[in-house]
Amino acid sequence: MKLATYKNDSRDGQLMMVSRDLGVACAIPDIALTLQYALDHWQDLEPALKARYTALNERKVEHDTFDQTRCASPLPRAYQWADGSAYVNHVELVRRARGAEMPQSFWTDPLMYQGGSDDFIGPKDDIILPSDDWGVDFEAEVAVVTDDVPMQCSSEDAAARIRLIMLVNDVSLRGLIPGELAKGFGFFQAKPASSFSPVAVTPDELGSAWQDGKVHLPLRSTYNGKLFGKPEAGEDMTFSFAQLISHAAKSRNLGAGCIIGSGTVSNKQGTEHGSAVEEGGVGYSCLAELRMIETIRDGKLATPFMQFGDRIRIEMCDPAGTTIFGEIDQQLKPFKT
Amino acid sequence: MKLATYKNDSRDGQLMMVSRDLGVACAIPDIALTLQYALDHWQDLEPALKARYTALNERKVEHDTFDQTRCASPLPRAYQWADGSAYVNHVELVRRARGAEMPQSFWTDPLMYQGGSDDFIGPKDDIILPSDDWGVDFEAEVAVVTDDVPMQCSSEDAAARIRLIMLVNDVSLRGLIPGELAKGFGFFQAKPASSFSPVAVTPDELGSAWQDGKVHLPLRSTYNGKLFGKPEAGEDMTFSFAQLISHAAKSRNLGAGCIIGSGTVSNKQGTEHGSAVEEGGVGYSCLAELRMIETIRDGKLATPFMQFGDRIRIEMCDPAGTTIFGEIDQQLKPFKT
Repeated sequence: MKLATYKNDSRDGQLMMVSRDLGVACAIPDIALTLQYALDHWQDLEPALKARYTALNERKVEHDTFDQTRCASPLPRAYQWADGSAYVNHVELVRRARGAEMPQSFWTDPLMYQGGSDDFIGPKDDIILPSDDWGVDFEAEVAVVTDDVPMQCSSEDAAARIRLIMLVNDVSLRGLIPGELAKGFGFFQAKPASSFSPVAVTPDELGSAWQDGKVHLPLRSTYNGKLFGKPEAGEDMTFSFAQLISHAAKSRNLGAGCIIGSGTVSNKQGTEHGSAVEEGGVGYSCLAELRMIETIRDGKLATPFMQFGDRIRIEMCDPAGTTIFGEIDQQLKPFKT
Repeated sequence: MKLATYKNDSRDGQLMMVSRDLGVACAIPDIALTLQYALDHWQDLEPALKARYTALNERKVEHDTFDQTRCASPLPRAYQWADGSAYVNHVELVRRARGAEMPQSFWTDPLMYQGGSDDFIGPKDDIILPSDDWGVDFEAEVAVVTDDVPMQCSSEDAAARIRLIMLVNDVSLRGLIPGELAKGFGFFQAKPASSFSPVAVTPDELGSAWQDGKVHLPLRSTYNGKLFGKPEAGEDMTFSFAQLISHAAKSRNLGAGCIIGSGTVSNKQGTEHGSAVEEGGVGYSCLAELRMIETIRDGKLATPFMQFGDRIRIEMCDPAGTTIFGEIDQQLKPFKT
């Protein structure tokens, strides 16, 4: 099943069902007006949702051309956004670039931060920030949306509670991170509003690419019109989504509609620090990783962070080259009061 | 205006209007079914809410006795819960107890962490946890609920965007904090579900006790039936709520219904480390602070963290001794699968 949210005059937008090929879409007000409502009542609504999806794919219900430019993030606001850092290779690189050892426990105990979830921006919305001196970076990730998850849920049980999968651009302000993390309470100002792919899909839509709680497909990041990264999201993902959910639920319940992120997708590529697309590698999912490699390998930085006007596009295609989630495509622009 | 949420069979409960004396309450389905809905449409609904409140206080609308035991937290789930640490005295004590210097910048740059907001527990609900070996502590705090707040909002503008005030028990797992903070990404497992006072009130309800974006009244914590703390919440609060909101909005918008906490209320009491209620002081708002003082002053700990069966009650009264928000009153109990 594929779902999206069109912007309207409400805070939560209008839930849309989207055909498998992203060709057409229809509103389903008789089933659910918003995605959060559908998630709140998933068990009850699932049969009706599935039936309508079949009909839509056969063009047997009234529909219009699906318009990604009308999309908000599938959940324009959510009750939880918790982002893991499951590609431990990426974490090790970050540490090495600043001369720090990574604790061995990072390979067994997931890193996760609590993100702001009250005001996501849409997949085609500009990234609006007061300054491009803050080290603005994109982070291409995969995320899942959960059903209710009880405290102490095991990884095994968590797997069955994944309702939807989508892509994320977890915008980060690298210049604000060191000062903020030094204070000891984690990220806050360093993590402005994230955006999610136009379409969220149920795991079955991925077929055999969804295995062991990981998405085994390349995540493509295109920066200013040039392919920047295409790492395989299922590779080098040390913790599956099921493990990340179980980690999050150690001491609390997670409510339906909770979004759990994978962290920046990164492949080790069998080398010490991977390589760029133009060098025949799979490239990177954020500017910081390339900059870390420049620091470690070359001793100096060549790639600046995002400046006003820069553009990032994030997408994932099936083996036939067809987009699954639609595209996140955003330009950095200055905030004006 | 005073508002509460009764539990019902929905996730967001039923919005209730409560009389000033907390004597009676009425549902207001013709105005708003849930508190989040009221906050989403506050400007439009405020006149109707005010008129109904006047009528309720005069017992001119249908009503029932207000029953705190039926209450969920005013927002049973929220899109944002960001907790400041505005009583810098408290932060300095924490650091000193573990032999660490506090950076001078902490007096000018607020500490704030992003909390989980998808599954708050009610003010009379048990605190359910799998273990009481995790250093379970209460933290008595004040919190505000905001209207929409635009990015880069100044403290001056932020003050007018405070819609409601309530009390919080920000349960903390002290045993999990050092390991989690050492990982660098802030709190996650160390912060289980928080609970909020039965009643949320508009700032005008506090009269002259609401000044400069601070609540100038004592916050009473009663632990296992014995008064444990009564610090004045307006004293030693280094950052006002307006300043905390402005801090939170540096790089993002805050959506209506965002909850911003004060952090554990703590008075310096003109001494190096304050004193307990039984010593004639105002006492403390969490066990950790007393334990820190025991460590610094006595060189050894005398007070354990909460064990299963322990009970914490948090409330705030006006100068005449009348409860303003109702009481948070919770017992720690074991999680059973």
